[in-house]
Amino acid sequence: MPYYIGDVIKDERKLIARTPEKFEASGIHVLLNRKVEEVDGEKREVRLENGERLPFDVLVLATGAAATRPPIPGLDLPGVYSLKSLPEAVAIKKAIGEGGAKKAAIIGAGFIAMETAEAFRSAGVDTTLIQRAELPVRRWDPEYSAMVKEELQKHGVHCMPLTSPRAVERGASGGLKVVTDRGEVEADLVLVATGVKPNTLLAGQLGVAVGKTGAISVNFAQETSREGVYAVGDCCESFHRVSRSWTSLPLGDVANKQGRVAANHICGVEDEFPGVLGSAVCKVFDYCVARTGLTEREARAAGFDAEVTLTPAPDKAHFMPEARMLMLKLVADRKTRKLLGAQAVGPGAGDKRVDVAAMALTAGMTVDQLAHADLCYAPPYSPAVDNILTAADVMRNKFDNIFKGVSAEALQAELSSDATPVLLDVRTQAEFDQMRLPGSLFIPLGSLRARLKEVPRDRPVVCFCKISLRGYEAARILQGAGYENVRVLDGGLITWPYGLESGD
Amino acid sequence: MPYYIGDVIKDERKLIARTPEKFEASGIHVLLNRKVEEVDGEKREVRLENGERLPFDVLVLATGAAATRPPIPGLDLPGVYSLKSLPEAVAIKKAIGEGGAKKAAIIGAGFIAMETAEAFRSAGVDTTLIQRAELPVRRWDPEYSAMVKEELQKHGVHCMPLTSPRAVERGASGGLKVVTDRGEVEADLVLVATGVKPNTLLAGQLGVAVGKTGAISVNFAQETSREGVYAVGDCCESFHRVSRSWTSLPLGDVANKQGRVAANHICGVEDEFPGVLGSAVCKVFDYCVARTGLTEREARAAGFDAEVTLTPAPDKAHFMPEARMLMLKLVADRKTRKLLGAQAVGPGAGDKRVDVAAMALTAGMTVDQLAHADLCYAPPYSPAVDNILTAADVMRNKFDNIFKGVSAEALQAELSSDATPVLLDVRTQAEFDQMRLPGSLFIPLGSLRARLKEVPRDRPVVCFCKISLRGYEAARILQGAGYENVRVLDGGLITWPYGLESGD
Repeated sequence: MPYYIGDVIKDERKLIARTPEKFEASGIHVLLNRKVEEVDGEKREVRLENGERLPFDVLVLATGAAATRPPIPGLDLPGVYSLKSLPEAVAIKKAIGEGGAKKAAIIGAGFIAMETAEAFRSAGVDTTLIQRAELPVRRWDPEYSAMVKEELQKHGVHCMPLTSPRAVERGASGGLKVVTDRGEVEADLVLVATGVKPNTLLAGQLGVAVGKTGAISVNFAQETSREGVYAVGDCCESFHRVSRSWTSLPLGDVANKQGRVAANHICGVEDEFPGVLGSAVCKVFDYCVARTGLTEREARAAGFDAEVTLTPAPDKAHFMPEARMLMLKLVADRKTRKLLGAQAVGPGAGDKRVDVAAMALTAGMTVDQLAHADLCYAPPYSPAVDNILTAADVMRNKFDNIFKGVSAEALQAELSSDATPVLLDVRTQAEFDQMRLPGSLFIPLGSLRARLKEVPRDRPVVCFCKISLRGYEAARILQGAGYENVRVLDGGLITWPYGLESGD
Repeated sequence: MPYYIGDVIKDERKLIARTPEKFEASGIHVLLNRKVEEVDGEKREVRLENGERLPFDVLVLATGAAATRPPIPGLDLPGVYSLKSLPEAVAIKKAIGEGGAKKAAIIGAGFIAMETAEAFRSAGVDTTLIQRAELPVRRWDPEYSAMVKEELQKHGVHCMPLTSPRAVERGASGGLKVVTDRGEVEADLVLVATGVKPNTLLAGQLGVAVGKTGAISVNFAQETSREGVYAVGDCCESFHRVSRSWTSLPLGDVANKQGRVAANHICGVEDEFPGVLGSAVCKVFDYCVARTGLTEREARAAGFDAEVTLTPAPDKAHFMPEARMLMLKLVADRKTRKLLGAQAVGPGAGDKRVDVAAMALTAGMTVDQLAHADLCYAPPYSPAVDNILTAADVMRNKFDNIFKGVSAEALQAELSSDATPVLLDVRTQAEFDQMRLPGSLFIPLGSLRARLKEVPRDRPVVCFCKISLRGYEAARILQGAGYENVRVLDGGLITWPYGLESGD
């Protein structure tokens, strides 16, 4: 629907995957505009509001999820939408087109919020994102969410983080205003995109078990706690194959697959849905924002001894003009050396690398196995050693103690402590002149061996360059020369979030 | 180098991954323009042509491969190139630019030939491809090579299949001509791109074993039959993880990985190179041409009970304007249900799907496991059920005898036999009017149930549509109605290579 609002898709009928006519052609009867009054699990009968009764042998609950709404007044005012149905999308597009809406406020900062913000901006609508958290797409680690925020701002989206909406009210000149704890936002239309919650009313009537997540409990055949009653899609739980726990992940692709498994099981074809990895991707203006498995935060919360790598690099051979920066983050388990998750942010093809990581997770691969995978190479498609394989190699180097990394966050903390490390910048003079970390020691990599005396031996040293490839080589040179406390800045200056010193 | 010739890359220095200066900065001495006279494995010493002697503890052979040359006269004439070195690329670009070369002949039809043909065409050079085989990129199955040929021809490349060059001679007006068994081709420059053979001269001197493939034998640590002598890259063999045999696959990404494994082993870091899958990709004008694992032909030759699927479909959500057609072919083993290989051809993102297939091969996954993989979904990146997952589901349906496929080749043979099957076309009237198989029975899917009487019960029926999705539904309807001999045309009309009837 966001792509329809942004006019990437002109005709709303294209969004209907399967019309009633197509179902009928397959001998499947479709009853539209019927509300279910009650489902009786004992009598195995569905009772409709209009009095009809539909007996069943097998029942599939595909009731989806409903948009959550913050407990604030004014959400029923005309001009407030939640984008859970096609008529809403049509109304929003009309409001912008014929209605001439010029200002929009979005409450929330998840996928729907991101995609709709892009749609609004491409329609020339002034857009403000209001969110309670500090950073958008909270399910990514903070350094990546921060990059998404930059991309939003670069395209003119006003971000209001750490902000709670209090009410939506009628504004001046016929518009609306969102009243928050940090001031008011005027808007011609307001989108509430604070997430969804599973529709479990019928499940309750049937007495089938609902999980801790609030979604319907199912087994690997998608069957609920009541025999012959299945649940698929946003209304039910999925098993997370990495965290080994039942979760609620309302995503269209997962719903599709669960539907197939339930159908197979009902028809006597052996099949089971082994679960999800939390794979997801979102286009945010020029950025591909993708993830699979666990983030660093999630991995630590789940008790893993998590190690991470940040490997920013071009997504194609460096000499190809269409190469784009791809920020890749891997999370792996020190104990088993298994991959736990991957995140990608940037203009580069992150979806491809995260899909490869998803396959590694499916197979329970170690980073060593991933590093040796034979992926396709040609300059228009990838570097000779693909970004994800390099990332896996970097992780192996960490596991094998060939080098130690330090995160920007940890380094920033050290810099304001008593034991400040030496910041060894090994880039070129031109790079250094343009932008640098304040207080860093500058020795280009090529002269490091000759100028080792300039690097103090009695203090910790943190080596870096733009992406920490040369920084890594510098660390190896120092280690070879007997330096004992040497680390490399994870992700290099390109991912440093705390500001740099520029100019001469 | 083809991208430099095509002026995608302006500066040839960008093609040098690592300069001697960078090696020296890492303490690695680089001796350029030295020819090795002899390597003595007993004395562990390298003798150079200039008399220098270099003793070694460990020796790494990274001698690469040399361009093969057909045994025909005239290949030493000025204007004949093989593109195995940067100076040749510079000379070719100069010949086109300053030299004003207007016509090129390429002998061979592999990757280098494809990429250079594209480079020549983008520089406005009239290009003829001369090859012995019937179709380009012979390592793909024929139906896909045929599509590559169409793409070449669409962009003005003249293809001369089944043609053997006899000589290159000086032509009229100062140019060259390639004399073949099918006539002469005039050209200002000739590229010989008939493949490479491993350079094993030094290996011979060392007495290290060379495999049946003609490349140096190595173990999984890249060590040759002589202790302390390693071989990496195009000069040595690689273990094929699907066919379980040693092969020679001269590819840059494989060389990189082997180098790392050898270095690790030499430095005492545990590591081994588990081998290759034959993953490769090539850009041919607007087509991405990718593969991994075994083709149908290779799988049958290796003794597998191979089943295949052809699943042409848009590579993104069908409603996205940037969705592009992606022809995917999977090969899997009926006995174990394991994936054996994948091929992709078309303007869609085939590299991504083939990389996912490569991961499935790495893990030895069944198509059932692949079908349940949780890949990233958003409309700008994939359909809700990704192409590769749909392909895996189609394969499962074949394995589970939910439907039977028939290849275009097999159907074409049946059509010229006595037992002609009913060709049931279930597309729309508009599609049928535009283009159809001669002699087909036309019943749109929506009316099939009502018009079943028109479909003969005493003959085999082959159902199809554009991509065989509706064709599959039709087959299921017929099977449900008791029809016993029903098949679906693999890949639908979009992959039918024998010509269609058009117009009203």
